[in-house]
Amino acid sequence: MPPVLLSARSAALLLTDWRAGTDAPAYEALSDALRVLVIDGRVPQGVRLPAERGLATALGVSRTTVANAYSRLRDDGFVVSVRGSGSVVHLPRELAGRPDPERLGGVVSDDLLDLRKAALHAAPGIPDAVERAMRHVPAALAGIGYDTVGDPGLRAAIADRYTERGLPTDPAQIVVTIGAQHAIALLARVLVRRGDAVLVESPTYPHAHEAFREAGGRLVGVPVDARTGWDAAALETTLRRTAPAVAYVMPELHNPTGATMSASTRELLLSVAAATGTTVIADETMGELRIDGVPSLPLAAGGAGGAGGARGAGGSGSAGPVGSAGSAGSAGSAGSVVMIGSADKVFWGGLRIGWIRAAPELLHRLLLARPTGDLGTPVLDQLVARELVPRTAAVLEARREYLRQGRDDVVGALRTRLPEWDVPSPAGGLTTWVGLGRPVSSALVLAARSEGVVLASGGVFGPDGGFERFLRVPFTMPPADRVRLVDVLERSWARIGGDAAGVRGSLAAVV
Amino acid sequence: MPPVLLSARSAALLLTDWRAGTDAPAYEALSDALRVLVIDGRVPQGVRLPAERGLATALGVSRTTVANAYSRLRDDGFVVSVRGSGSVVHLPRELAGRPDPERLGGVVSDDLLDLRKAALHAAPGIPDAVERAMRHVPAALAGIGYDTVGDPGLRAAIADRYTERGLPTDPAQIVVTIGAQHAIALLARVLVRRGDAVLVESPTYPHAHEAFREAGGRLVGVPVDARTGWDAAALETTLRRTAPAVAYVMPELHNPTGATMSASTRELLLSVAAATGTTVIADETMGELRIDGVPSLPLAAGGAGGAGGARGAGGSGSAGPVGSAGSAGSAGSAGSVVMIGSADKVFWGGLRIGWIRAAPELLHRLLLARPTGDLGTPVLDQLVARELVPRTAAVLEARREYLRQGRDDVVGALRTRLPEWDVPSPAGGLTTWVGLGRPVSSALVLAARSEGVVLASGGVFGPDGGFERFLRVPFTMPPADRVRLVDVLERSWARIGGDAAGVRGSLAAVV
Repeated sequence: MPPVLLSARSAALLLTDWRAGTDAPAYEALSDALRVLVIDGRVPQGVRLPAERGLATALGVSRTTVANAYSRLRDDGFVVSVRGSGSVVHLPRELAGRPDPERLGGVVSDDLLDLRKAALHAAPGIPDAVERAMRHVPAALAGIGYDTVGDPGLRAAIADRYTERGLPTDPAQIVVTIGAQHAIALLARVLVRRGDAVLVESPTYPHAHEAFREAGGRLVGVPVDARTGWDAAALETTLRRTAPAVAYVMPELHNPTGATMSASTRELLLSVAAATGTTVIADETMGELRIDGVPSLPLAAGGAGGAGGARGAGGSGSAGPVGSAGSAGSAGSAGSVVMIGSADKVFWGGLRIGWIRAAPELLHRLLLARPTGDLGTPVLDQLVARELVPRTAAVLEARREYLRQGRDDVVGALRTRLPEWDVPSPAGGLTTWVGLGRPVSSALVLAARSEGVVLASGGVFGPDGGFERFLRVPFTMPPADRVRLVDVLERSWARIGGDAAGVRGSLAAVV
Repeated sequence: MPPVLLSARSAALLLTDWRAGTDAPAYEALSDALRVLVIDGRVPQGVRLPAERGLATALGVSRTTVANAYSRLRDDGFVVSVRGSGSVVHLPRELAGRPDPERLGGVVSDDLLDLRKAALHAAPGIPDAVERAMRHVPAALAGIGYDTVGDPGLRAAIADRYTERGLPTDPAQIVVTIGAQHAIALLARVLVRRGDAVLVESPTYPHAHEAFREAGGRLVGVPVDARTGWDAAALETTLRRTAPAVAYVMPELHNPTGATMSASTRELLLSVAAATGTTVIADETMGELRIDGVPSLPLAAGGAGGAGGARGAGGSGSAGPVGSAGSAGSAGSAGSVVMIGSADKVFWGGLRIGWIRAAPELLHRLLLARPTGDLGTPVLDQLVARELVPRTAAVLEARREYLRQGRDDVVGALRTRLPEWDVPSPAGGLTTWVGLGRPVSSALVLAARSEGVVLASGGVFGPDGGFERFLRVPFTMPPADRVRLVDVLERSWARIGGDAAGVRGSLAAVV
């Protein structure tokens, strides 16, 4: 297969702000920026770079600048010339040695603090749950094992949890998936056809926008800000103008900003989506990890009463007013709300148990499409999740205290040590979405990586690039690592603070 | 989202042979044939049928015939008229009640013998393996859990099994997937671009051709026959003419025919694929389930010496001549061979552990693409598979005797009781690919279903429809069910034997 071509237009989107924060010659700045994209895995090995002329036009620079930048990348071993295929991205052996993009950071050591995935340590109750689950293995082994629907006991436990949260749910509305990402990809395949508009938040969870794009979706973004939340006017305009097939949102503790959608925006979203025939997918992967305040009703319970705090001072476990709950499950595909959940953020990432809550008609379509991608959710993990899901509320109580401490430590230290940053204190989730004030996120990430702290740069969360002024900082790590994280960020900021010379200097150490 | 349109051309392909074996009026035969497609799940609920005029042209019948057929389907509740969307497929409540296409047969009872999936009962050693694996849970819980590469111990065990079979393999050539289907879909996403030709066998494993089609592949088929094997001339011509991006083959105990590719055809395939730059994917999901004869070397070991029996009379466990093994792993993407394997057919379908063996460069690309679909293989199942895979040879020994008995019972009884059928006795695998002599596979399947025996009709295995003259009959079931299977097939054959009146009569009973 010939190499995949990166178009000049896509390259220009990825290269937003490539000249910012540096007074180096343009060709040096451009080659540095491209190198960051390669190291980050955003332009993967084997991809063919745009023709020099095309990229020059897209970036508004001379062709010589691009030629010199490519030549410098070739000298550094990041690009090879392939006959008939132009300039093809190549990873130097030090980076490519392990076939694991998770470890592409170059610095592979036990001492690595990898914070690209925001995830908690395993919940303490898992060994017990495994022990209890194993009693059911002999019975499970009597079955054929291929299970695209989900274990009935697990589906009932998931339905009960929704009911507990104020959204009455029947197990027939639940299908178990191999984690939330698998749920997103399955929904994208079934709901999106080539050329359909798909509304996503900007920033958003990157593998979600990849899945919708791969399904042929044309992404349209709506801004979300850590402090001011959703841009309701943009949301309404975009919905009405593009009538998207799908709107993918994280209304509760949005990733990466930590924002929660207000009651009025929820109502707006649901009413306009119903008018435009848009299926709303509400991803609650982070949604249960609330630290402060009162949890909202799940979005499928309707807009009224669905916002954070709108249920008044009631305890988080009490079943509040249900709004229009119940009707959502029986609604047709137009204007319906599909919920995605996951056991993995609450309990452990190694479980790979997620789910979809939708009307049985849509589930039926998902089940017909599913075998093209996989033949079912592993049975043992479902048996374990069946033991764990009923204990969600208790586990979250312990998680909440841990996360509160982590958030307060990290946010407090960053505010003190890096006062020029804008460091929000989110009401929950696993991360804070830091405003750096300058478009240097990739440079900062590179500098931190050379000290063994690996973060995802802001641009990863932009469906169209951008967000070089932001950094997602998890607060999931144990106390000693929090200190290390903040120390490294402070030093890295100082290193890149003056001019871009510091950045370029650090590259040699990384590669 | 508006309903998906079934094009007149696709409908005509699905309706191959719709008039065969019946002297009913054309509109009745057509509505019966469409009804079978709906019940079978091949035309799913919610799909919009072609416009009457278009389908009439594609089938070479009058528009009135199509109109009357649609009208009959509406009367029977299989089609609803949706304003602005024409005739949309609908499943009567009796069929749609459970959101599980596996149970769409209509007859849902404990007494159902569902043979649409060819799979063995769980291997007896699994509870022990689970027990042993659980000792490693505490250590595993210290990790983050998201594992797109695979547990190192499991990858080493899989590599060892290839080496044991005569194909020296390093763990760095292995990535663990969530079953073989997940491996196929991942490879399709990475290797196939929209419009690329993809060579598949005809017949072939249906979810594979679905995955390649979903990735945008344009399928080209090469005939495989249970008795005469691959059409080598067609294979060469098709490869040279279409230069496919991928050739997806099951060279060892092909599903559904049970055929094994000869040494000369293997050599031909590999040499022509190298010339056309085609990546060969060899799916060995069934490949280890040999009953008679000597296993071939894995295809990646090269053509010479790779054919069934070509290794002479050596024991199945002995490491024979290795041919060009070793070079395949380091070959570039052009002309390279990718192997797919699975623990699920050997041990248990509920495990969902498969793998890909490929050059690290390709694995790297797969790992970059993987998070768009899922974030990793569940950890607990990998721990269990790590215990099981090293025991493959011992488990296969017991499986072999069981399968030999099953095959000989089912094949023998079918040959005696239905002498007009062509019933091959395959050298392994889980099924026999029966030639019925007449294009009545769907009718036979419907009749058998009304007695609680559920089979996949031959057309399911045709990448372009067809195969109505064939039926895949598993021999995986315990002895009592073998008797029942053959009894039901004999009675069903008699019921549809005279004319199509019997088939139509049976529909009421099913629905």
